[in-house]
Amino acid sequence: MVVHVGVIGVGVMGADHARKLARVVSGAELVAVSDFAVDTAEAVAAELGARVHVDGHQLIIDPAVDAVVIATRDDTHADLVLAAMRAGKPVMCEKPLAPTAAECRELIATQTALGLPTELVAVGFMRRFDPSYLALRDRVRDAQLGAPLVVHCVSRTVHTYPGGDSASTITNSAIHELDIVPWLLDSPIVEVSWQHGRSSAHSGTRQDPQFYLLRTASDVLVTVELFLNARYGYDTRCEVVMETGTAALALPAALTVDAERRRGVDYPADWIPRYSDAYRIELQEWIDAIAGGRPSSLASAQDGLRASVVADALVESMNSGGAWVKVASG
Amino acid sequence: MVVHVGVIGVGVMGADHARKLARVVSGAELVAVSDFAVDTAEAVAAELGARVHVDGHQLIIDPAVDAVVIATRDDTHADLVLAAMRAGKPVMCEKPLAPTAAECRELIATQTALGLPTELVAVGFMRRFDPSYLALRDRVRDAQLGAPLVVHCVSRTVHTYPGGDSASTITNSAIHELDIVPWLLDSPIVEVSWQHGRSSAHSGTRQDPQFYLLRTASDVLVTVELFLNARYGYDTRCEVVMETGTAALALPAALTVDAERRRGVDYPADWIPRYSDAYRIELQEWIDAIAGGRPSSLASAQDGLRASVVADALVESMNSGGAWVKVASG
Amino acid sequence: MVVHVGVIGVGVMGADHARKLARVVSGAELVAVSDFAVDTAEAVAAELGARVHVDGHQLIIDPAVDAVVIATRDDTHADLVLAAMRAGKPVMCEKPLAPTAAECRELIATQTALGLPTELVAVGFMRRFDPSYLALRDRVRDAQLGAPLVVHCVSRTVHTYPGGDSASTITNSAIHELDIVPWLLDSPIVEVSWQHGRSSAHSGTRQDPQFYLLRTASDVLVTVELFLNARYGYDTRCEVVMETGTAALALPAALTVDAERRRGVDYPADWIPRYSDAYRIELQEWIDAIAGGRPSSLASAQDGLRASVVADALVESMNSGGAWVKVASG
Amino acid sequence: MVVHVGVIGVGVMGADHARKLARVVSGAELVAVSDFAVDTAEAVAAELGARVHVDGHQLIIDPAVDAVVIATRDDTHADLVLAAMRAGKPVMCEKPLAPTAAECRELIATQTALGLPTELVAVGFMRRFDPSYLALRDRVRDAQLGAPLVVHCVSRTVHTYPGGDSASTITNSAIHELDIVPWLLDSPIVEVSWQHGRSSAHSGTRQDPQFYLLRTASDVLVTVELFLNARYGYDTRCEVVMETGTAALALPAALTVDAERRRGVDYPADWIPRYSDAYRIELQEWIDAIAGGRPSSLASAQDGLRASVVADALVESMNSGGAWVKVASG
Repeated sequence: MVVHVGVIGVGVMGADHARKLARVVSGAELVAVSDFAVDTAEAVAAELGARVHVDGHQLIIDPAVDAVVIATRDDTHADLVLAAMRAGKPVMCEKPLAPTAAECRELIATQTALGLPTELVAVGFMRRFDPSYLALRDRVRDAQLGAPLVVHCVSRTVHTYPGGDSASTITNSAIHELDIVPWLLDSPIVEVSWQHGRSSAHSGTRQDPQFYLLRTASDVLVTVELFLNARYGYDTRCEVVMETGTAALALPAALTVDAERRRGVDYPADWIPRYSDAYRIELQEWIDAIAGGRPSSLASAQDGLRASVVADALVESMNSGGAWVKVASG
Repeated sequence: MVVHVGVIGVGVMGADHARKLARVVSGAELVAVSDFAVDTAEAVAAELGARVHVDGHQLIIDPAVDAVVIATRDDTHADLVLAAMRAGKPVMCEKPLAPTAAECRELIATQTALGLPTELVAVGFMRRFDPSYLALRDRVRDAQLGAPLVVHCVSRTVHTYPGGDSASTITNSAIHELDIVPWLLDSPIVEVSWQHGRSSAHSGTRQDPQFYLLRTASDVLVTVELFLNARYGYDTRCEVVMETGTAALALPAALTVDAERRRGVDYPADWIPRYSDAYRIELQEWIDAIAGGRPSSLASAQDGLRASVVADALVESMNSGGAWVKVASG
Repeated sequence: MVVHVGVIGVGVMGADHARKLARVVSGAELVAVSDFAVDTAEAVAAELGARVHVDGHQLIIDPAVDAVVIATRDDTHADLVLAAMRAGKPVMCEKPLAPTAAECRELIATQTALGLPTELVAVGFMRRFDPSYLALRDRVRDAQLGAPLVVHCVSRTVHTYPGGDSASTITNSAIHELDIVPWLLDSPIVEVSWQHGRSSAHSGTRQDPQFYLLRTASDVLVTVELFLNARYGYDTRCEVVMETGTAALALPAALTVDAERRRGVDYPADWIPRYSDAYRIELQEWIDAIAGGRPSSLASAQDGLRASVVADALVESMNSGGAWVKVASG
Repeated sequence: MVVHVGVIGVGVMGADHARKLARVVSGAELVAVSDFAVDTAEAVAAELGARVHVDGHQLIIDPAVDAVVIATRDDTHADLVLAAMRAGKPVMCEKPLAPTAAECRELIATQTALGLPTELVAVGFMRRFDPSYLALRDRVRDAQLGAPLVVHCVSRTVHTYPGGDSASTITNSAIHELDIVPWLLDSPIVEVSWQHGRSSAHSGTRQDPQFYLLRTASDVLVTVELFLNARYGYDTRCEVVMETGTAALALPAALTVDAERRRGVDYPADWIPRYSDAYRIELQEWIDAIAGGRPSSLASAQDGLRASVVADALVESMNSGGAWVKVASG
């Protein structure tokens, strides 16, 4: 059985999803794309052999479309997910499910009210499919090194896009850490504290870097450095300190190069090479689950909400000068 | 267009190909499998939803089969490739195309005599699709570090299977280096010398490790250490020394682990995790090319022959005590 | 000119100092040792050709002794430093100068009252002489990567000695970080916060690991993980995140070993191999400065006090549940 | 007891020795220097407080000089060593002891004829005191990974000095490998083969890189790449492949730096930082042995000869087109 997919929003990320669905995901066929920039949609459609819908809502109700990927601007997610729910079509929405926890709650309430299965809505927390994160979770679970005590996360990108503020660092970027840490430790985040020091000269109007302390229900202390204008490269780090040893994500590298008095490996400039495999595996699992009529292992709407309530608590801590803030129940 | 594939030989490698074709290669459908061990074939078929042919030749002529993968014992390759040629079906044969250069030449002669297109026969030199080797070739080609001067290859595996001799190390294992070096340097191997020192206590009846010197038409000196009973892990290394710097395959690693007074990364026990991605990408390219009616970038029968004539020269050098031996023309 | 040195306290650390002074420090001669365990003193004296004093105070006033090293228990430091001051002899006291800031202040007051030069008292913060820390400071100072924004310190040891409590982790172990961070950033620590999560099952009666946030006058946020029962190895890490890149201490390693499916490098079991060179260079600088009649670049009593007041603030933060606490002026 | 040392030849290397003897070697005092460039000698003497001799022979017979270091041009070594022998003074001669095996033999014959103790003459093969090489030898000797089978050596420098030819690469640079390999494996080199491929555009009139195969009496196959114009950095590598694992020199690095899309560590530009510690430890051992009236663990004149006869065999192999050549007995 082939799953016919439509992709709404074919900017850098959506176009990448569209290409993967058209070319390297088994059992999927890309049939339609849509974008507020019609030219962009037409170019992607021509490249990959799909039809164009001017409007995402029309794509959703197109009978040729079995399942929908949403990769539009954050503030349009909720509306489109709702439309997909009403059409009864499986939907994978890029993170965040919605910019606020309130909107996430509303979506889940509608999903319940409509009697829709949980698996109908998936959220694109692709790190759950990254082979390194999976290997790290295996190490934590096998407990050979004892219980996890402390986790150090670092997430750095080359530069920010114009227009964000300090809160958007949390809701849009740190949200990945807020999802992956509970998944890694099998324990929800219950308390958070927002901290900062000097901001980079390149940070524009937002505080950058930011630093967070998180505490899980299992009392693991988690530290997170989020630095969006780190300039040097796209770099995700995570070290889990356990009772008799530690495990950390290795820096992925194809080559070691010796040149100009240095031995080095390259950093990617952005998430595309770093998480390409994770996105592919995530999409494959999503398609396989739809085709097989079974729940997928993608993050659910509930997972999307859980990350959002932690983000809300971090924003509250930021606004209150760094105090520890309890996380509301998801 | 979906390409319906049959896989002949579903031992460890063939079963892995079958699973990839069934599950993660876009545009492919696994329709048939075959194995001299019928139980094995039936188990794989049941797992993946394919039919079983008791005989590889019957699989080849099955009208439901569009394209054929051969992953049987080396000495059966030529016969099955010939059958696929006669059926006019695209075939991807695991390396070596045939154990001797003579058999390779015969296959190519038949291919020419039948007026078949070159791309009908592909040889599974999967390293050509390994992202690290591809990045290494890009570095060599961009010439920012000057011309290549020396290449150091190391290929180590954990242990040998019973029954091989010193020549089979060359024809069965070193064959990968003999293919990848000319591909990497864009220059054929023209001269070879076989060397050795002390053999490992675990080496059985074969010389192990072995050491080769190769010279390309472009006068690059290539050193190869082939050590099949290296015990510690499955390890492929390749460093290209250029005029102002070097580039080398990085050791792939998901995690860095600190434990028991050591910081370390894990080696795989065999080729499966090391080259899983390369096999997937290779199969995807093969299917895409078939579906698109275009030549693929897989190794051709001619490439298979080229590697075999170099292997023959190495065996001759071995038998003559290490002298430099000229490589016959492919 | 040869400087004749006496070493008080020849346990593991003092004996190491004695050996270095006797054997690898140019211009120094070890003439006397002393220890509350007379047997130990006699063994070291016999090994190195020095005389034994039963009492540290007698060693200090021995006319054959030009300069004194103190490596006794922390609570005896102040008393012995005072005696050396009164004898007008240069003294290098192992850290901490004294267990409390109050005692440090008293020593400095006496030094001033006696009209003694600042350089008469040195404190053994040897990390200032570690080649890696020096290279790191050079990188921070050359400012090619912009201003420092965040510093991440990790200090892990294999196991604790019996008897310590959570406060002693700060005053005895973290004290190294509290000295090195201002030295590295050329800015004092002005505010601190003590944090913790789950304690290791091997932590005994103290909280372990502990986690600190420090803020410098230049508004750099510094994170410190102090884990004394980390089990896996002796490991000091320090990464300085600057505006366009980061620099971090490399893990020192003599060998890379491939064995049992792992590539790894060894961790030392304790500080002896990790900081052996730093101790040697520190002692050489101390001797050279004495012989040359010039101030040395070792940490001064004032530096010892500065670290102690930060430690006091951390203990206060710990006792108040993690609040940010201002550091008293040194 | 203080050993009063005179240094003949205070170019880059000799001046470094002089500084170490004056400043960081315990028990040594630098009393005299000499150089064919009198200005250079005077500058070093002024810096370090030593007297100047216009002629090396006068320095040797200066009664204030207890022991002599020779760091002059290679072709003057034999003559000066001879003078030191006649004066009965311990001498440490930089490698090579003499440019040809014949001259080495003559020196040893004279040493024997004069009834001088073996330890009177030491050769500066400092790698024997490099902590990494020592750790590597320990690993080979402890035999936990089985017997050594293959050794891969790589020695690369940034650029050559004008005027050398292909033979001088062997006698002047590769000589370090020719000494260290037998020391590492406890087995002499008995057979050698010289190989080459394409030469670097920066190689001037010599073949560069060069490649050697060495065979020890214990039948270990040793590969050596010697590349003097490698441009990218000063880089010494050595990997010993044993029956169940390998051990290799780690790349020494103080810092890891993330900048401009790369994670990297710095290479030194030359031998000074790479082997600074080895030289210091070597000189300390030399002084300690002289002061203690005991043989040192430095390379002897016999060791210098052993390396030279291997070098001769390599030159012979080079001149005969790469044939395996037996090494003459030392």
